[in-house]
Amino acid sequence: MDEQLLARRAKRLAAVFPKAHFPSELASHVIAFDSGFAAPELLPDLLPFAARALSTHRQESLQYCASQGQPDLREWIAGHMRADGSRVTADNLMIVSGAKQGLDLLCRLLIDEGDAIVVTAPTYFTAIPIFRSFGVEFVEAPQDEQGLQVKTLEALLRARRALGKPAPKFIYNVADFHNPSGATMPEGRRRQLIEVAREHGTLIIEDSPYRRVRFAGAAVPTLKALDTAESVIHVGTFSKLIAPGLRIGWIAAASDVIARLIQLKSDGGTSPLLQRIVCDFCRSPLFEEHSSRVRTHYGQKRDRMVAAVRRELPGVELLIPEGGYYVWLTLPTGMDGDEFAQRAAALGVNLIPGSRFFANTDPGREPPLPRNHVRLSYSFASLAQIDEGVRRLADVHRSLAT
Amino acid sequence: MDEQLLARRAKRLAAVFPKAHFPSELASHVIAFDSGFAAPELLPDLLPFAARALSTHRQESLQYCASQGQPDLREWIAGHMRADGSRVTADNLMIVSGAKQGLDLLCRLLIDEGDAIVVTAPTYFTAIPIFRSFGVEFVEAPQDEQGLQVKTLEALLRARRALGKPAPKFIYNVADFHNPSGATMPEGRRRQLIEVAREHGTLIIEDSPYRRVRFAGAAVPTLKALDTAESVIHVGTFSKLIAPGLRIGWIAAASDVIARLIQLKSDGGTSPLLQRIVCDFCRSPLFEEHSSRVRTHYGQKRDRMVAAVRRELPGVELLIPEGGYYVWLTLPTGMDGDEFAQRAAALGVNLIPGSRFFANTDPGREPPLPRNHVRLSYSFASLAQIDEGVRRLADVHRSLAT
Repeated sequence: MDEQLLARRAKRLAAVFPKAHFPSELASHVIAFDSGFAAPELLPDLLPFAARALSTHRQESLQYCASQGQPDLREWIAGHMRADGSRVTADNLMIVSGAKQGLDLLCRLLIDEGDAIVVTAPTYFTAIPIFRSFGVEFVEAPQDEQGLQVKTLEALLRARRALGKPAPKFIYNVADFHNPSGATMPEGRRRQLIEVAREHGTLIIEDSPYRRVRFAGAAVPTLKALDTAESVIHVGTFSKLIAPGLRIGWIAAASDVIARLIQLKSDGGTSPLLQRIVCDFCRSPLFEEHSSRVRTHYGQKRDRMVAAVRRELPGVELLIPEGGYYVWLTLPTGMDGDEFAQRAAALGVNLIPGSRFFANTDPGREPPLPRNHVRLSYSFASLAQIDEGVRRLADVHRSLAT
Repeated sequence: MDEQLLARRAKRLAAVFPKAHFPSELASHVIAFDSGFAAPELLPDLLPFAARALSTHRQESLQYCASQGQPDLREWIAGHMRADGSRVTADNLMIVSGAKQGLDLLCRLLIDEGDAIVVTAPTYFTAIPIFRSFGVEFVEAPQDEQGLQVKTLEALLRARRALGKPAPKFIYNVADFHNPSGATMPEGRRRQLIEVAREHGTLIIEDSPYRRVRFAGAAVPTLKALDTAESVIHVGTFSKLIAPGLRIGWIAAASDVIARLIQLKSDGGTSPLLQRIVCDFCRSPLFEEHSSRVRTHYGQKRDRMVAAVRRELPGVELLIPEGGYYVWLTLPTGMDGDEFAQRAAALGVNLIPGSRFFANTDPGREPPLPRNHVRLSYSFASLAQIDEGVRRLADVHRSLAT
């Protein structure tokens, strides 16, 4: 094995894929606030659907599937998205093996090494190494409680243009219940973002894993629904609504983009067995029933965690998300999130320090990397674990405040 | 959408991913000799395994899985490979969503644009666009009835070295029942290949989808089993033995290579539901029973197709494969495989022209692109369809011979 070759490549990849913790690997006293696992009690009974897929549909579900994905499932998703305001048909859809495969394929299609892309600061931390592996330059857009600050982004793009730099290839954003910030962009700001993207000839990738996991407030139209010029590529998934282990997501885009993505999806197709299970579950009355349970359940967990944070962690600020799996804590100034996470782990609470959610980690970064954040997930822990976990975090907080 | 950008990228990708035909898309009179679908009658009853995966193992099978793959399945595969002569443990294995994802990940790890790789001429046609999308230079090694001609390859590599060119990054080969040629490399030639690879500091990627689908002759040790210097990376799959729709394959390599591949597998893990189904099927007594049925069945189909070709297609030569799914026909000199395939399609027989199996299609290619080949698959068609399909090919043959 050529060690130099491997070392060079590993360096280029920056090797920052964080090691995930899996429920089965956790000691019994450990409380997992770190990862986006589903609530164990919400994992649905898919057996009747698997039984049909493996008998009636066996000749479909156990052979290869077309790269674009199973037609019935694409039809269902298209209807689902149309009901949510998007003008799409099954031809605008491609099934992928999870949203992350979708992001990877979109990078393959759109990115040449050295291209710029826009991400929010902070952004979804798992997307960072995917983007980085394509050799992108990150342009970071700041956020507030209404999500991506479009005016600031516009100024950044104009400044780049004035310097003769090419426009970023795309703007990557999670508009609903942003991961990690929890912010949801209001409609006006979404429209502004689409306008700015259009003006600069830049695409928007709308990553929307939590769209159906809204437990408070009124839905805001998706970026895709507001788009009239095919500027928005929408990435969806069933991982957060049904189960991560199914690895079924989708890309919604103009049909010529889909045609090219099909050429790039050289993996032998996404499992038709999983597609059939998901499709039949979605077409059954259980889908709405399950979705409603999911919303209620995560809403309760969010309430429990927000109450615990307010009770136990004085001086810690958070934005209350209207959906999704996470709260983003702003620790008192000077309290270090990495240190906080390390001490929490010593007390058996896993969480992710905020520094992981910033794409640009250069020492000369402007503004400097914010250090006083951590992300807590309330999706997997039980209500009792949420109370106990945040109580332990109070000890961490006290130890760092003194 | 930036049309120029897409057009440029499409061009670079060479856009040669052939459109697959799926059983459900075929008219009833059409006979599919084109694709590597499983025999419909061999698709096993996986329902008992899915039932357990979705009940007893629900908390594992519906959550995320570690990137390296499910530990029980890796243990089983390691034992399976050790029984086949390879010195591997579960640490040397990574589960992938089909062998094609494995090839893609290996290219990500090993290839920089412009790097050379060795492929046989002909080679597995689905791998060609995967390799090409990484911008490789193809070095083609000729084959005979004993597979890759190692002496010729050695001369090619020496000539490259004399010109100061860097060694190819890897040699890609299917040593058992080569797709499409059907040839199996004897042990001596395998040892020579490993020696040549070692001398030139080049890796070997042994793609081994048909290893367990041997219905005649004695097994030859895999390249992986003969390798003492970690020169060989082995890629396996359950697609050809159990079912393609499961999309479960694996990579066996040195543990430092696996560690780096894990960093690159950013897709959220291969479905733990599918891994659990495969694992429990493999650990059950049904595995050996099923494997034996598979060997008998495809052996009968090969016999039927070989007999039909000999009866119906005078002057056509073929090597009789000892396993796998395909026969590679050498048509009489001057008979064009593309034309043959086109006329066959008009008579309702789908097959793949030989020209598709050559990576280097430059007009100035030396030797010139062989035109007088087609590949027939006997895996999916029934015995009656094999007879009828080859009978129709006799009409094509007559129409081209006159």
